[in-house]
Amino acid sequence: MPLIELDDLTDPQHAGSLRDYTALKDVQLRARREPAEGLYLAEGVEVIRRALAAGHVPRSLLLSRSRFEDLADVLPAGATVFVAPVAAFADLTGVDLHRGALASMQRPAQRSVPDLLASLPAGPARLVVLEDVVDHTNVGALFRSAAAFGVDGVVVSPRCADPLYRRSVRVSMGTVLHLPWARAASWPGDLDLLRSAGFAVAALALTEDSVALGSFAVPERLALLLGTEGDGLSRRALSGADLVVRIPMDPRVDSLNVAAASAVALWETRRA
Amino acid sequence: MPLIELDDLTDPQHAGSLRDYTALKDVQLRARREPAEGLYLAEGVEVIRRALAAGHVPRSLLLSRSRFEDLADVLPAGATVFVAPVAAFADLTGVDLHRGALASMQRPAQRSVPDLLASLPAGPARLVVLEDVVDHTNVGALFRSAAAFGVDGVVVSPRCADPLYRRSVRVSMGTVLHLPWARAASWPGDLDLLRSAGFAVAALALTEDSVALGSFAVPERLALLLGTEGDGLSRRALSGADLVVRIPMDPRVDSLNVAAASAVALWETRRA
Repeated sequence: MPLIELDDLTDPQHAGSLRDYTALKDVQLRARREPAEGLYLAEGVEVIRRALAAGHVPRSLLLSRSRFEDLADVLPAGATVFVAPVAAFADLTGVDLHRGALASMQRPAQRSVPDLLASLPAGPARLVVLEDVVDHTNVGALFRSAAAFGVDGVVVSPRCADPLYRRSVRVSMGTVLHLPWARAASWPGDLDLLRSAGFAVAALALTEDSVALGSFAVPERLALLLGTEGDGLSRRALSGADLVVRIPMDPRVDSLNVAAASAVALWETRRA
Repeated sequence: MPLIELDDLTDPQHAGSLRDYTALKDVQLRARREPAEGLYLAEGVEVIRRALAAGHVPRSLLLSRSRFEDLADVLPAGATVFVAPVAAFADLTGVDLHRGALASMQRPAQRSVPDLLASLPAGPARLVVLEDVVDHTNVGALFRSAAAFGVDGVVVSPRCADPLYRRSVRVSMGTVLHLPWARAASWPGDLDLLRSAGFAVAALALTEDSVALGSFAVPERLALLLGTEGDGLSRRALSGADLVVRIPMDPRVDSLNVAAASAVALWETRRA
């Protein structure tokens, strides 16, 4: 394996590869660059292990000496590995990466909603559908809960934040790397594809015609539709739902955060 | 009411009052200063309304012109109100406060565990007990879920992050201002006080002798004990619990984040 030890990360000979790790603090830039350049970043030993276990291919890895040793057993032959002092990471990335482990991974081909649906088993199944959740932390937390409670897949709306953004991946504890997900091409039109595949679309919202979580029969094929915290679900998405579900709560509290609400709804609708 | 319009916030005449708002970015400094100086900061119109509704007394308020108008109906006579351009806030506070509304509030006297217990109704009741949750976001999220699901009070361990820190208050949606809470003086010794008051202490953890959430009779008086994400509950706290409860989940996922886990446990153990 090409192991490249560097004292600092400004070596022009490796500028092409090292560019994958620059300007990590600039969320807007990174969110644009990473899909365009076909990469995503895995951070920390556990997440990198999960990425490799999911069969994803590294473009390169940037590791401290001790993190390199932690990962030595799983690094693919032929992977380009930069080993450098942790202090040098911050100069390159603009961020204090105390974990000392970053991998630039080839981004897998984006799954479409029809592909995701075709991959699901017949019979009981659950999907989570996210409309325009733009906060990477919330997206990551949602995947973590979805994976914990045995959800079969996730659909994100076209404007939803990238599940493969570094922070999403980290907060998800790497679950975005094994839980199948798709990005809708048409919104909310793709909800019809779910319905055609036998899913009842249940929107989580507080509307007058909502039913209380815990007091309705959970459909065998359930697609749980969640919106952003601020504005909630769009009117168009709501009108595309088959039912609306509310989480009963103390009237002095307007709402739960989206991570807490989704965890509760996924727990309550889990299959025994 | 002393309404003081300022173009910038460096006026030496008001340096004493304005000092309440300096160095907001320095979490460690603020976390030390605020309890010592007997204040906490409420941020945003909704949180400030909740603080005033809870009967808390402002030392002063720092508002943009339009936020001043939003709050005019609830500002107490005699309150010191600084009105300044939002752009000037950042110079003073070190933080970009786009909400344009900050209030320095007199910190209420710290409630003790015996005081909290004495304030509870006889019969069915639920408490949440937090051990060493040091992340202000997690503390805030936890209060929000606890308030949403009708918890009667919260106990925090001596090393737990301050529920009245600005970020905790904001993430809690101001629920820390109406949900009664106490800080334990002795840890985990104060768990005995809960038991003496008839509470069964149920620790949320993954241990061999744990019972699955959803498969045990919820005690009439339940104290749900939660630890940090990283290390979980201390051995001493765990051994002080009457039972250990786990949230069953997919074996590929180690855990839920503490906000999601607590929301699920509080939902499942709610009183109908």
